[in-house]
Amino acid sequence: MSLTLYNTLTRKKETFTPVHPPLVGLYLCGPTVYNDAHLGNARGPIVFDVLTRYLRYLGYQVRYVRNITDVGHLVGDSDEGEDKMAKTARAQKLEPMQVAQHYTVRYRQAMSALGCLPPDIEPQASGHITEQIGLISEILDRGLAYEVNGSVYFDVPKYNAEGLNYGRLSGRVVEELLANTRAELAGQDEKRSPADFALWKKAAPEHLMRWPSPWGEGFPGWHLECSAMSRKYLGAEFDIHGGGLDLMFPHHECEIAQNEASGTPSTGARFWLHNNMLTVNGQKMSKSLGNFVTLNEMFQGQSAALSQAYSPMTLRFFFLQAQYRSPIDLSDEALQAARKGFRKLMNGLRLLDSGKLEARSGEPAVDADKLAANSQQLLALSKKPFEFLSDDLNTPRAVAAVFDLLKRFNSLAASPAALAEVSPEAVAEASAAYRAVVSDVLGLRDEPRASAEDLLALALGFYQEAKSEKAYDKVDQIRTALKSQGIVIKDTKTGVEWAYSED
Amino acid sequence: MSLTLYNTLTRKKETFTPVHPPLVGLYLCGPTVYNDAHLGNARGPIVFDVLTRYLRYLGYQVRYVRNITDVGHLVGDSDEGEDKMAKTARAQKLEPMQVAQHYTVRYRQAMSALGCLPPDIEPQASGHITEQIGLISEILDRGLAYEVNGSVYFDVPKYNAEGLNYGRLSGRVVEELLANTRAELAGQDEKRSPADFALWKKAAPEHLMRWPSPWGEGFPGWHLECSAMSRKYLGAEFDIHGGGLDLMFPHHECEIAQNEASGTPSTGARFWLHNNMLTVNGQKMSKSLGNFVTLNEMFQGQSAALSQAYSPMTLRFFFLQAQYRSPIDLSDEALQAARKGFRKLMNGLRLLDSGKLEARSGEPAVDADKLAANSQQLLALSKKPFEFLSDDLNTPRAVAAVFDLLKRFNSLAASPAALAEVSPEAVAEASAAYRAVVSDVLGLRDEPRASAEDLLALALGFYQEAKSEKAYDKVDQIRTALKSQGIVIKDTKTGVEWAYSED
Repeated sequence: MSLTLYNTLTRKKETFTPVHPPLVGLYLCGPTVYNDAHLGNARGPIVFDVLTRYLRYLGYQVRYVRNITDVGHLVGDSDEGEDKMAKTARAQKLEPMQVAQHYTVRYRQAMSALGCLPPDIEPQASGHITEQIGLISEILDRGLAYEVNGSVYFDVPKYNAEGLNYGRLSGRVVEELLANTRAELAGQDEKRSPADFALWKKAAPEHLMRWPSPWGEGFPGWHLECSAMSRKYLGAEFDIHGGGLDLMFPHHECEIAQNEASGTPSTGARFWLHNNMLTVNGQKMSKSLGNFVTLNEMFQGQSAALSQAYSPMTLRFFFLQAQYRSPIDLSDEALQAARKGFRKLMNGLRLLDSGKLEARSGEPAVDADKLAANSQQLLALSKKPFEFLSDDLNTPRAVAAVFDLLKRFNSLAASPAALAEVSPEAVAEASAAYRAVVSDVLGLRDEPRASAEDLLALALGFYQEAKSEKAYDKVDQIRTALKSQGIVIKDTKTGVEWAYSED
Repeated sequence: MSLTLYNTLTRKKETFTPVHPPLVGLYLCGPTVYNDAHLGNARGPIVFDVLTRYLRYLGYQVRYVRNITDVGHLVGDSDEGEDKMAKTARAQKLEPMQVAQHYTVRYRQAMSALGCLPPDIEPQASGHITEQIGLISEILDRGLAYEVNGSVYFDVPKYNAEGLNYGRLSGRVVEELLANTRAELAGQDEKRSPADFALWKKAAPEHLMRWPSPWGEGFPGWHLECSAMSRKYLGAEFDIHGGGLDLMFPHHECEIAQNEASGTPSTGARFWLHNNMLTVNGQKMSKSLGNFVTLNEMFQGQSAALSQAYSPMTLRFFFLQAQYRSPIDLSDEALQAARKGFRKLMNGLRLLDSGKLEARSGEPAVDADKLAANSQQLLALSKKPFEFLSDDLNTPRAVAAVFDLLKRFNSLAASPAALAEVSPEAVAEASAAYRAVVSDVLGLRDEPRASAEDLLALALGFYQEAKSEKAYDKVDQIRTALKSQGIVIKDTKTGVEWAYSED
């Protein structure tokens, strides 16, 4: 069962083999930490978390790098304008790195709630200035960049003249790009061609984030960090580069150009994977449409675009219901369906925990062929989710196959006779497969629903009732049970209270 | 009530005033992320978290910087030997930055459990190579460092010859240092004087962490990062630098020397604060004595040195029971006493939440003088904790004062007559003070004790009992109560089960 992945670079599904098995290097473009992540921002981290988990399930040793962009990402994703970080810092009267830390902490918390494993390396753009300057110097040495007035630009026409192909990833043609961008050229006359992009920008006097360089004080271009950091931590040629479809052009296109123009020429990753976008009630999410929802707003039910709060695991399951290359539309209905599906899968784990599928009374007199056929069928059912995962990470079909398996478990649990007609080994193997796909690969985990506080109130209600019924044995029983939980019941004139036991 | 702090630099308690009020810059030496933090490592972050919280309570805008050391800290805290990060990376066959990320993630989790607010900026040493190279260049320009064979050393004798005083912070005399270190000089012949220390080290061919510099490929000396990063984020002259007593020499001494020898000469911080050390059962914590306990080992009850698990808040309260400049000894007895004290304070919050201190029946006929005197006395009691906090952060006396206040609250709650003899305004103000000191300043917060799972089992027990007693109204009541918590009860042949409601 070999893993195939759709490679944007070649526009086809390819069998995945790592450069240096069993190692796999995976790089995902992380957040620009100038505001809170919105719902759409969660799709990529969830998709590539599942991919990382699945690669590990398959036995690969994955080094998963997800960066933090804290410098160089300008408003409008362009080469001119204010740095997104600096803009927020100015608005909030903070040091840019305070802004970065604030949103980075919140991003990590949200990712953790969504069940996304922390990356193995989480490099910050501002922490790799030396490496970025080094890479620019290499590109200048190759003659594929030029310095103008303290800034350095990548020379796209010259790059293409050398037989390399800027546009290879996104399928864009430089001539068309030039025609489209000519109108936007005002004030960008430093560039020899409008297709060129910044590797290093001279810092204006008021610019806060600035570092010395061979070209004067400035800061790196947005695209540069990913080339420099992926090479540093994964090598010049590595396995997988992920990101949202919106990053394919210009960000990833520029990354490839930088990689090819470096002193260690390569496309960088062999596989370039892109997850598709999220719409909300059929529309692109945007602040002006009032359907812009941050992760925390959803978790806490603070968004007018949704009728209620939805949990992190509900959102995770929601995203798994679409193949990552398809668009996905979010709505109350879709989230409620996702919640239901998620809870079903959790009840499946509870069924396996209950031991009901292991309960057998005596040796059954079952036809050996029938036993073998049933067992075979159960095992085939349990392998299906992995077959779909191996097909370009088809999570919706994998999830459907898990539901088929659960249906079979439920009917086995309901009928001792049916259970007797499957071998215990097959049941055990299928159970292990269910756990592996649900917990380990899809990364779904129980979310506490009943709160300890509410359940405690319930117990105190029982206590009060037992007291009024003068059922003193029950009174003592509840008192003892709560005491063992560190809770002391106090009888007062006005009713019942509790306090922490201070022992 | 002005805040006084003991300044190691001047060896006396001084009234604290910031360089640029209302801003306060606070820098704390953070962890070297090559292994899990042990119990002693938690003291500094807790002490300086309380200081940060108290400064904010007093109205200051604190910028709290705590760094992550991920390069340059060599085994034995010396200038020769293997990098601690690289050593762990080699042992675990990982990239050094994977080691850094692994232990950084765990450190942040532990700090969060201990109620320590995340720092406002959390800079990594490896992310500030440019800044460190810049600082070295300044020191070379001042003639206070020299290059030998690709390494750069700080010239301590020359620094002292210029009238500056290496040894000022720790009270050590360079001549004595020289006498003591002469024996250790083997292999360190690059240094002109044994008191000199490394600013930049040439990387041996096998060294993994290396960056280009004007002096060839290498890596920064351990002491350098804190000078470079505190200056970058807090300015050349800032307010408070914290750290453990074990860092006073050589680490902080070298920081001050680097700061004074820079292009922006200053001691760096005006106040240098040092927290004292932790002993375990009267002994220094060490691996060979078998009393080396990591935070997670304690929280999970996995240490042979302790008889049981203790919660993060228990450890936090334990540390608050000593003034930060005193040594503190940890033992089962001390932790159990801390747990008890912590729970008492939490029950105090429950008392305030109960509204009992607001309950008043009618207008009492109380003597006006008595009312005024009692109210005055309560207010005085409620101010005491802050007076002690303002006295060099005397948390043990502050905690004792909080207990006095709680005692008074308890007696007021127990006697409506007594409560009637204090003005509601005084009670409200004292209650607010209790909350402020316990929650906001000391940073103590409720830890769930009763688990939802155990309480659910209790409720299911009641359900089963009601069923066997054929008390069907009670059966329905429990069913409904749990349903509202998202839990569905299932009656089976063998007993009672629950599942998640899938709605």
